[in-house]
Amino acid sequence: MKYTLLIFLFLVFNFSILAQNIKSPDGNLSLSFKLNDKGEAIYNLSYKGKSVVEDSKMGFEIKGQPTLKNDFKIVDTKTSTTNNTWNPVWGEVKTIRNHYKELAVTLEQKAVGKPKTEEQKNKELFVSADSYHHVGDITRRLIIRFRVFNDGLGFRYEFPQQEQLKYFQLTDEHTEFNLTGNHKTFWIPGDYDTNEYAYNTTKLSEVNAYKGKNVGEISTRVLFADNAVQTPLMMKTDEGLYINIHEASSINYPVMHMMVDRKSFGLTTHLTPNAVGTKAFLQTPAKTPWRTVIVSDKATEILDSKMILNLNEPSKVKDPSWIRPQKMVGVWWELHVGKSTWNYADVNNVKIDKTDFSKLKPNGKHGANNENVKRYIDFAAKHGIDGILVEGWNVGWEDWFGNWKENVFDFLTPYPDFDVEMLNKYAASKGVKLIMHHETSASAANYERRLDEAFSFMNKYGYDTVKTGYVGRIIPRGEYHDGQTMVNHFNHVAERAIDYKIMIDSHESTRPTGLHRTYPNWLTSEAARGNEFNAWSSGNPPEHETILPFTRLMGGPMDYTPGIFEIRMKVYDENRKTEQVHTTLAKQLALYVTMYSPLQMAADLPENYEKRMDAFQFIKDVAVDWDDTKILEAEPGDYLTMARKAKNKDEWFIGAITDENSRTATAKLDFLPKGKKYVATLYMDTDDADWEKNPMVYKIQKFIVDNKTNLNLKLANGGGAAVSILPASSEDFRRFKTYK
Amino acid sequence: MKYTLLIFLFLVFNFSILAQNIKSPDGNLSLSFKLNDKGEAIYNLSYKGKSVVEDSKMGFEIKGQPTLKNDFKIVDTKTSTTNNTWNPVWGEVKTIRNHYKELAVTLEQKAVGKPKTEEQKNKELFVSADSYHHVGDITRRLIIRFRVFNDGLGFRYEFPQQEQLKYFQLTDEHTEFNLTGNHKTFWIPGDYDTNEYAYNTTKLSEVNAYKGKNVGEISTRVLFADNAVQTPLMMKTDEGLYINIHEASSINYPVMHMMVDRKSFGLTTHLTPNAVGTKAFLQTPAKTPWRTVIVSDKATEILDSKMILNLNEPSKVKDPSWIRPQKMVGVWWELHVGKSTWNYADVNNVKIDKTDFSKLKPNGKHGANNENVKRYIDFAAKHGIDGILVEGWNVGWEDWFGNWKENVFDFLTPYPDFDVEMLNKYAASKGVKLIMHHETSASAANYERRLDEAFSFMNKYGYDTVKTGYVGRIIPRGEYHDGQTMVNHFNHVAERAIDYKIMIDSHESTRPTGLHRTYPNWLTSEAARGNEFNAWSSGNPPEHETILPFTRLMGGPMDYTPGIFEIRMKVYDENRKTEQVHTTLAKQLALYVTMYSPLQMAADLPENYEKRMDAFQFIKDVAVDWDDTKILEAEPGDYLTMARKAKNKDEWFIGAITDENSRTATAKLDFLPKGKKYVATLYMDTDDADWEKNPMVYKIQKFIVDNKTNLNLKLANGGGAAVSILPASSEDFRRFKTYK
Repeated sequence: MKYTLLIFLFLVFNFSILAQNIKSPDGNLSLSFKLNDKGEAIYNLSYKGKSVVEDSKMGFEIKGQPTLKNDFKIVDTKTSTTNNTWNPVWGEVKTIRNHYKELAVTLEQKAVGKPKTEEQKNKELFVSADSYHHVGDITRRLIIRFRVFNDGLGFRYEFPQQEQLKYFQLTDEHTEFNLTGNHKTFWIPGDYDTNEYAYNTTKLSEVNAYKGKNVGEISTRVLFADNAVQTPLMMKTDEGLYINIHEASSINYPVMHMMVDRKSFGLTTHLTPNAVGTKAFLQTPAKTPWRTVIVSDKATEILDSKMILNLNEPSKVKDPSWIRPQKMVGVWWELHVGKSTWNYADVNNVKIDKTDFSKLKPNGKHGANNENVKRYIDFAAKHGIDGILVEGWNVGWEDWFGNWKENVFDFLTPYPDFDVEMLNKYAASKGVKLIMHHETSASAANYERRLDEAFSFMNKYGYDTVKTGYVGRIIPRGEYHDGQTMVNHFNHVAERAIDYKIMIDSHESTRPTGLHRTYPNWLTSEAARGNEFNAWSSGNPPEHETILPFTRLMGGPMDYTPGIFEIRMKVYDENRKTEQVHTTLAKQLALYVTMYSPLQMAADLPENYEKRMDAFQFIKDVAVDWDDTKILEAEPGDYLTMARKAKNKDEWFIGAITDENSRTATAKLDFLPKGKKYVATLYMDTDDADWEKNPMVYKIQKFIVDNKTNLNLKLANGGGAAVSILPASSEDFRRFKTYK
Repeated sequence: MKYTLLIFLFLVFNFSILAQNIKSPDGNLSLSFKLNDKGEAIYNLSYKGKSVVEDSKMGFEIKGQPTLKNDFKIVDTKTSTTNNTWNPVWGEVKTIRNHYKELAVTLEQKAVGKPKTEEQKNKELFVSADSYHHVGDITRRLIIRFRVFNDGLGFRYEFPQQEQLKYFQLTDEHTEFNLTGNHKTFWIPGDYDTNEYAYNTTKLSEVNAYKGKNVGEISTRVLFADNAVQTPLMMKTDEGLYINIHEASSINYPVMHMMVDRKSFGLTTHLTPNAVGTKAFLQTPAKTPWRTVIVSDKATEILDSKMILNLNEPSKVKDPSWIRPQKMVGVWWELHVGKSTWNYADVNNVKIDKTDFSKLKPNGKHGANNENVKRYIDFAAKHGIDGILVEGWNVGWEDWFGNWKENVFDFLTPYPDFDVEMLNKYAASKGVKLIMHHETSASAANYERRLDEAFSFMNKYGYDTVKTGYVGRIIPRGEYHDGQTMVNHFNHVAERAIDYKIMIDSHESTRPTGLHRTYPNWLTSEAARGNEFNAWSSGNPPEHETILPFTRLMGGPMDYTPGIFEIRMKVYDENRKTEQVHTTLAKQLALYVTMYSPLQMAADLPENYEKRMDAFQFIKDVAVDWDDTKILEAEPGDYLTMARKAKNKDEWFIGAITDENSRTATAKLDFLPKGKKYVATLYMDTDDADWEKNPMVYKIQKFIVDNKTNLNLKLANGGGAAVSILPASSEDFRRFKTYK
């Protein structure tokens, strides 16, 4: 008995043999960590007793040092529980619960660094070494911190301050996610420079980055392996379990892609390289972003998850009173449909520091001219839209695209027909604001060189919001959009903008990872295939918007630029025979609810709204900041129905969308307060609506509803429905029937 | 007869057959240009009827396009003469004559671009092309502009604006300089990242970059070929002809190195590559820097040459009244000799945005502390020195070196013991100024990100001069100090500084090419092996300072930091047994004349000057801006004697230096105005002085001199002499004898 006890105690206290285990607060998720007999670090995850991620390895390669993937010992473990709530500055909900169990494992490894080879030494006579090469004994510590929430697992690596690891280059992060089967997967290919692909839905075994949708179509692209995919990665098992893999808090680290083992269904991290062929330059203490695995047997709970936000650092903005969710219109869609141009003149070779733009012959189609901008200002002011984005206001658009040009824009000099002072004053007189546009053409070096001037210019003229863009190949040349340098750039711009009280909408930036909690002035980003692709390419299939919330939007809001009413492009250009938005008009309205963004665009031309002011009313009414969100029904790739409560208002909005299959969405209004009546305005597809054949027909109905009402919303193929629910007035009672 | 005439006329007007020729105004230099039977562009240069550069080819390789090196036709030639004078804001002389004959040849080439291969097309499906690939007929024009001055030849290439050449990447510039023999050559190895080598003096056939001086010693180095050398390149033929090859006006182009054909004695340009392996990103209209060949049978005339300045663009500073040549002392040498430290604490891992420096344990040896800085301020004010450089004033020095660290300095945050406001006010109260220090640690991306803030900070506290540094591997990573990106960076900093009325002294920048004419606020630079190497390395051999004016200083002034009186380092650190300045004390004084810089440092510690105020008097008296310069005698690698007239003053200063051989320098004072008497103060080596055995002995003598005086100055080995010539007062007549 004594010996059994001794053995038991020995086992209990011998970290190396037993697995460490923590469970989510509700007990459903179970995370185990252990070392195997090679001293490799292994974790696994199960949900309701069934394996989600089988034993998976964790480790790194560091330039000039022995591998950091084996021969580990556990020298410390700490567990803790955290349970609190916090209120985001803006969001899908007012209050977020942060409840997790944490396990922090400190690993130590003793290794021996091999001496430099003679060849290496000789080479270094002529070319100094570019990294520290450790020779002899080296002891390194690595902390792996696991947090298990009810909605999923997050873990990250931390390199604590330590004598033998200070400045180092990662050449590889080797984190495995060994999945349990050939799951249905919603994926876009791993690409160092773009995330603007439409999703492929295949089994893991069928992933092929070189054969997916839109390969070769996106102008700046770097596919690197046939079995590479990006995150957020959405999967559904044959058993009906939903799994989402992504990152949280991507700071000072390259973007993580995934390599798929199409036979064993294992995923392995693949970090975006830098200009010198390694992955990350780090200095201890350093931490990686969180790797996140969100799990549920309900698709709606995937969308409910706030885990990624919970894993991010709190807001850095002490006084966020200047940060405001908003709606915008803009001199923008007309550029995409070819009605007008960004450029002022039709020349193809300008130098912003030498060309006298006032001497160029205007092409007569320049969109950002005083008269046109005033028209948008008037429209916005009339309809309660906060901001007017103007693209093409500044010199340099004549040759901005595709030339890998460094000194491409100065962000200061307007074209001759754009009076920056007059227009901003005009907007202010009407109670609205222009929204600045900083297309950088991916010349981030140029943008950073000019950033203080550009932001000061904004302050001077009264702009407080800027849409940035990074179309093209990155400068500093050799870097990628997804590399550590650009991750730092995007974060730096957001952080610097705080000093100027400026809000950001970034396009062609890295897909978000919840950093809008830390930088709440970073309202939204594109970082995926948006509505604009419909104007000039094969566009977005009807299922696209039913996938994005399960993928791209898991990390943060998206500036999808919905609200296109004039569905077909041939009205603008008869050569655009097939280009169209791949949804019905009603679905475009629904997107204001289903595509979360605190900055939402009413993207179409004012005249297209003026023709359909009844439908436009939804856009005017819908909120952009929320107290609560209910995901009523959802299936990735198929359909989505959700309801949201406007912040500080007794108003609810529902959006229901479907893919290429028509369906009836059901929305139980039991979230409404009891005993209160509301008028629901339903913006719907008609029975004969069809995204391809008859996309622009719609009907609007109003009913009295209450918390006992169940709405049945018939959606056309590629269709949707949008519902506003406002308190019913006595007038409403008289006019409208009760919904049945 | 008629036929002969016709043939003659045909030949005359057929550009393709006859060579174009222009001569220097005095007829000595002759430049010829022609096309050979392959349509290759060929130039040659002769001097007084003898060949200096034999037939040499000219051309380019452009990515994605056919070669641009042959099949040229001449479509236009223009010749012209220019003869004017201009006055630099500051300089070695007050007025510079710009007199040259110019030949501008317009070449046209018709070629056919090959189609992309199947392999290329397939690859581009996955990875978008990074340059424009021209298929089919392509017509390109290239202008070569030659200017022949009395002192040499300059030529550059111009890519005019043209339909089929807009944005392009150069992969090679192929400019030959086919020399006529195995010349004696003063060279340092081609290195993309450093120019801090001591010179090797060998025949061309013996050039070996991998076996020269200091190989493997300089911390950031990239030697790339055994037959590569840098410019300025100085040569002397067996016939006694002096030839100097360099560049002028290096703007938006990588630094030019040279590949030496050790058998044929031909040189070919080798441009520094960028992070993506090409050489330059250009947009038409574009021009290369001038390639310069300065020629004379007199070594003194090489040093007299103003051709490189004449080839630069005029000053961009409309009102240069804020630009002032100056002298400085500094908290600097004490750091190099180990008496104090740049860093405040002895930790080796800090983060400027996270570390609380006030909580670190000070090492007690921090040089840039209030008390010490005040001491330097007092010293400067007492002795009429304008500025006090302070290195190590700002946080981040604890781990700045060798870690390839990006966020290394913020240029704003002082250490706890440096009161920026108090010290600047203190300096102002004494009529002197602190000089700012921006060591960037080669993290140019970080510097540009912070530049406006850093310059505003300078304005706020009253600094108007900054010494910049670029020690380490460049960030953006993958770039080199000598690449196009960094050339643009250095130029950008100088140009941006104009907006803030800030003067620049750049260290570890690219060797200058006369741009201080265009940016007269860019007072000086290091960009070569300076005096500091003597403090902590094998140092600079005695001949070093007799070579630098023929090499490094051909392109611009050098902050050599002369004036070290305490010659041997072991007084500071007994471990530094052999480190010493490799000159006598008197030679250190002479350097203030022979090492031209409008910003000159009295580099030693105040206490070392206070011990020898008689010698220090020369440093106090010597001017830093000049009306006139006379090179009295010179031989590269051996000796140098020159006299300069202080700007707007009736004062002259003479400097005479020698290598490891003692000699007598002769200085005829026939440049003095007739009929006027002056008192000459001679600071000289004693008879037993010796740079190695007895370097610190010196004698000072005063004499009455006039324009008939010939001074004979005995120089010890590694020695020198400095002479100030000021108007004689009646008191001087009484006290001093006439020189014989």
